[in-house]
Amino acid sequence: MNTFQVVLCRASHPGNVGAVARAMKTMGLTHLALIAPCDFLNEESRARARVGVDILENAQVFETLSAAVSDCENVFGFSSRIRDLNLPFLAVDSAFKGISGKTALVFGNETNGLSNAELQLCTRQVFIPTSDKFSSLNLAAAVQIAAFEVLKSQNHPVQTANLPPRANAAEREHLIQSFAQTMEKTGFYNPQCPGRLIQRLSRLFNRADLEKTEAQILEGFLNSVFHPTSFRKKNDS
Amino acid sequence: MNTFQVVLCRASHPGNVGAVARAMKTMGLTHLALIAPCDFLNEESRARARVGVDILENAQVFETLSAAVSDCENVFGFSSRIRDLNLPFLAVDSAFKGISGKTALVFGNETNGLSNAELQLCTRQVFIPTSDKFSSLNLAAAVQIAAFEVLKSQNHPVQTANLPPRANAAEREHLIQSFAQTMEKTGFYNPQCPGRLIQRLSRLFNRADLEKTEAQILEGFLNSVFHPTSFRKKNDS
Repeated sequence: MNTFQVVLCRASHPGNVGAVARAMKTMGLTHLALIAPCDFLNEESRARARVGVDILENAQVFETLSAAVSDCENVFGFSSRIRDLNLPFLAVDSAFKGISGKTALVFGNETNGLSNAELQLCTRQVFIPTSDKFSSLNLAAAVQIAAFEVLKSQNHPVQTANLPPRANAAEREHLIQSFAQTMEKTGFYNPQCPGRLIQRLSRLFNRADLEKTEAQILEGFLNSVFHPTSFRKKNDS
Repeated sequence: MNTFQVVLCRASHPGNVGAVARAMKTMGLTHLALIAPCDFLNEESRARARVGVDILENAQVFETLSAAVSDCENVFGFSSRIRDLNLPFLAVDSAFKGISGKTALVFGNETNGLSNAELQLCTRQVFIPTSDKFSSLNLAAAVQIAAFEVLKSQNHPVQTANLPPRANAAEREHLIQSFAQTMEKTGFYNPQCPGRLIQRLSRLFNRADLEKTEAQILEGFLNSVFHPTSFRKKNDS
């Protein structure tokens, strides 16, 4: 269970952060990361955290989501609103079966949920099935259900083949930068009128659960576009 | 869903009762019964109920559990503590499959849970799988999970996204060929000792369920590597 972390983006109510810590504790999750949070350590949050007060006190604070998830192979963004991002869209009760690697469960602000920019850093969009008419769960309630499904998925482990190591978020982001730079040099990409080109590439590689080796291959290729000689030598040896 | 009711025995915190109403509302449950409750209609409970404030206001109050569940075929008592009652003991995620008739979901007091006398009125004892060490869920969190499992058991139709058109096998194969040709020209790929480079790329794009637009973007980029001018013009126009 310690390969899972809960990430709250811009949580605005200390009581909710405390309740999230308790929800995590009851399901065996321990790592809480907070992006630009409210003043989350106060009397109310400690009272709501109960058995989870250690999780609350040990929460790590980050300035950006990108920094919080940089070492995560899987980044699951919780949102039931369908966006124009074409991320794989999974129900929470089927999202965790057979996954491996470090996994972030990312939740948005109480009022607005996850922004498109936040969701763009995710490898999957996860929704919690709800009533058609009233889908707005309390933040801690959403974390409780997610953590419950994580616990169930770990209690009934699905046999998986030995999976190759996957690129983490930082490696994926680096690859996207390399694409952008090379595409700019060849004239295919114009940063002055970027359109959605880079977003689309980013989405593709997030969705693909890119492997480390694949990232290296593509980086190597992009490097070879403007440094052909060295690569020819290396390949021939 | 209106064959299900939630019954809280001796709830002691108005905020929790409000949060229970919200949890129910998000999962399409509407009937709330309270046995010997605290003063449950106040500012805090209304604030926590949010969209579920109508459920809170319409809650029925009973003096005894027996009165509240008198018309229920199924009475599910939530408790993870094993008693000497020989009730069928079910995990919440398998408790609601294939049941029919009026069903009560009965929850105990925040501090002590259900008494033996209360549980004796139940047809099933239901537990929520938790961490071995910290099993004490917040009352509203427990109701949230139970209501979520009820909703799932009722085969609730699930929203799905409109997926964008996918590249077909021929388009994926064409892309792989374009990669191979460009990589050969830059010197990154040597067809004389091919290794598994092309296979790996092919696997990546198959696994990713590559979209048509993504295939076009990558083809365009690869083309631009050795035909930079035309693309620069096109992009700028």
